[in-house]
Amino acid sequence: MKLATLRRPGRRDGELVVVSRDLKRCASAAAVAPHLQRALDDWDVIAPSLQQLYERLNDGAIADAMDLDPAACESPLPRAYQWLDGSAYLNHVELVRKARGAQVPASFYEDPLMYQGGSDSFIGPRGNIVADEPWGIDFEAEVTVVTGDVPLGATPEQAHAAVRLVMLANDVSLRHVLRTEIAKELGFVQSKPATAFTPVAVTPDELGPAWEGARVHLPMMVHLNGKLFGKPHAGEGMTFDFSRLIAHAARTRDIEAGSIFGSGTVSNKQGSLWGSSVENGGVGYCCIAEVRMYETIERGQAQTEFMRHGDTVRIEMFDAGGRSVFGAIENRVVPLP
Amino acid sequence: MKLATLRRPGRRDGELVVVSRDLKRCASAAAVAPHLQRALDDWDVIAPSLQQLYERLNDGAIADAMDLDPAACESPLPRAYQWLDGSAYLNHVELVRKARGAQVPASFYEDPLMYQGGSDSFIGPRGNIVADEPWGIDFEAEVTVVTGDVPLGATPEQAHAAVRLVMLANDVSLRHVLRTEIAKELGFVQSKPATAFTPVAVTPDELGPAWEGARVHLPMMVHLNGKLFGKPHAGEGMTFDFSRLIAHAARTRDIEAGSIFGSGTVSNKQGSLWGSSVENGGVGYCCIAEVRMYETIERGQAQTEFMRHGDTVRIEMFDAGGRSVFGAIENRVVPLP
Repeated sequence: MKLATLRRPGRRDGELVVVSRDLKRCASAAAVAPHLQRALDDWDVIAPSLQQLYERLNDGAIADAMDLDPAACESPLPRAYQWLDGSAYLNHVELVRKARGAQVPASFYEDPLMYQGGSDSFIGPRGNIVADEPWGIDFEAEVTVVTGDVPLGATPEQAHAAVRLVMLANDVSLRHVLRTEIAKELGFVQSKPATAFTPVAVTPDELGPAWEGARVHLPMMVHLNGKLFGKPHAGEGMTFDFSRLIAHAARTRDIEAGSIFGSGTVSNKQGSLWGSSVENGGVGYCCIAEVRMYETIERGQAQTEFMRHGDTVRIEMFDAGGRSVFGAIENRVVPLP
Repeated sequence: MKLATLRRPGRRDGELVVVSRDLKRCASAAAVAPHLQRALDDWDVIAPSLQQLYERLNDGAIADAMDLDPAACESPLPRAYQWLDGSAYLNHVELVRKARGAQVPASFYEDPLMYQGGSDSFIGPRGNIVADEPWGIDFEAEVTVVTGDVPLGATPEQAHAAVRLVMLANDVSLRHVLRTEIAKELGFVQSKPATAFTPVAVTPDELGPAWEGARVHLPMMVHLNGKLFGKPHAGEGMTFDFSRLIAHAARTRDIEAGSIFGSGTVSNKQGSLWGSSVENGGVGYCCIAEVRMYETIERGQAQTEFMRHGDTVRIEMFDAGGRSVFGAIENRVVPLP
């Protein structure tokens, strides 16, 4: 099934709706669960009723169904109890290291990289990125999953079974702030401001054969100011699948329902700056930092600028039939108030 | 006023209660707000009703008041949307660095250290720390505050005004896992398992003159297996007060109501290993790592062991009249299931 959250004044968690498979219509699920976190808290009991509602919506059997307006949506979880973001596409990590003349430690191929992100307040799928240009504003197009409860010490198989929903994210990153925070050795606080998610979250079964091995096997389509910037395949180069990422976090603690896990920026192995750009037949990039790393490696310095005020990034995924699976993230950069 | 959360099967957020000033009695606040997060979501509207209830409880005017059993309490927020932990006591940071033969960068005295912690699932004030001994199990006794909404770019004064509640925390740390994660440069995931908080959270006015300059001016009392281990003064050596810590995080993003901020492990400047121990008139330590750092600096290697299965740490604070302010955290270390 497909789920979204409509913005409701005075209600921080919005209103849960089921969304038709074609993303055109929606119907309130408030009678089943007031908001998505509530459904995740008691998924086994609540999900069957949501599924029934979803089927009735697809059958055109709900009289008070509405058109789905992505601009009226919050992120499916407008706030969450946890946002853990991996860096599962090792090509990205290899480029980061190569650009600064360092090796990738062998352990990175066995032990996932992951950071704890802020989850108290996400921006909407069409929300603005409010930031200062000198901070080095960048996007990261990622696949994410929302879990149920995962006990301490869970195996990857248990973790896999706990995946409830899939969505895409824009993990907004402030690259120039990030350098300072990495030197402080405690992770990211200021350099990873609020994340955005697609308007729609879907259960893994909605992906059909595109959900395989706890990975999503579809290209990630990224447009910057209306121009194709990247289309790497999310099923390729993901060294750690979601079951490994979730089990990594659960090694020392319980993971509670409603936790969001990110894949890290999607990145496919490509030979060179020239060969990687979409104009030259490459698959492009899911963040600006990546093209800058190719530039640094090949030309000695980065040339492509980070986002400026007024710039817009669009992140979306289409199924084999060309239909949008999750709707699109579209975030515009605006100055500080 | 003083607030706590009783454990209730099937309700992840428990049941909100007001607690008498002397911590002996409590009364359900469910008619006002079902749980603490709900009260924080709409504090200006809900707090006055809680305050009324609190006054009636202290006056003995609530017929169905109950005895407060700390073992029946969850952490005041059993789960939270954010847990950001600073490292505001620079003496601790200086010892960390000195023990590994490094300098403290000058910027550390201007720009707070802070990490994003997991907040999806806290352990109760009397909960068990479930961990493997080789992980290097340690506690950290900290002061924490819970905030209302803080807008992006908030000044320290705005941040100060947004402090809603004060409580203590045991920021459980796995020291041997931590070293590995620091080398990975993305902060802590596995090395900071679930945190515990005192059974009771109090509004700043309850602290009277002990809440001054966004700091708590009382000694932090730490017992390890029933023996006094530390009593450093939380008002001394806190380079960054809570208003600075909160404003630091709000530099690039909105902070939403119910966010918890930690002070980092409380630590007072003391000359030496000998002079710092409580037996020799020192104020002792709020974590085992600190005595190990003195040992490393003076003897070339750490000698005090981290926690073993069966060990218990107790963390509490008493007002000038010797009354417990927040009740006690008491966590016991137990093996993995």
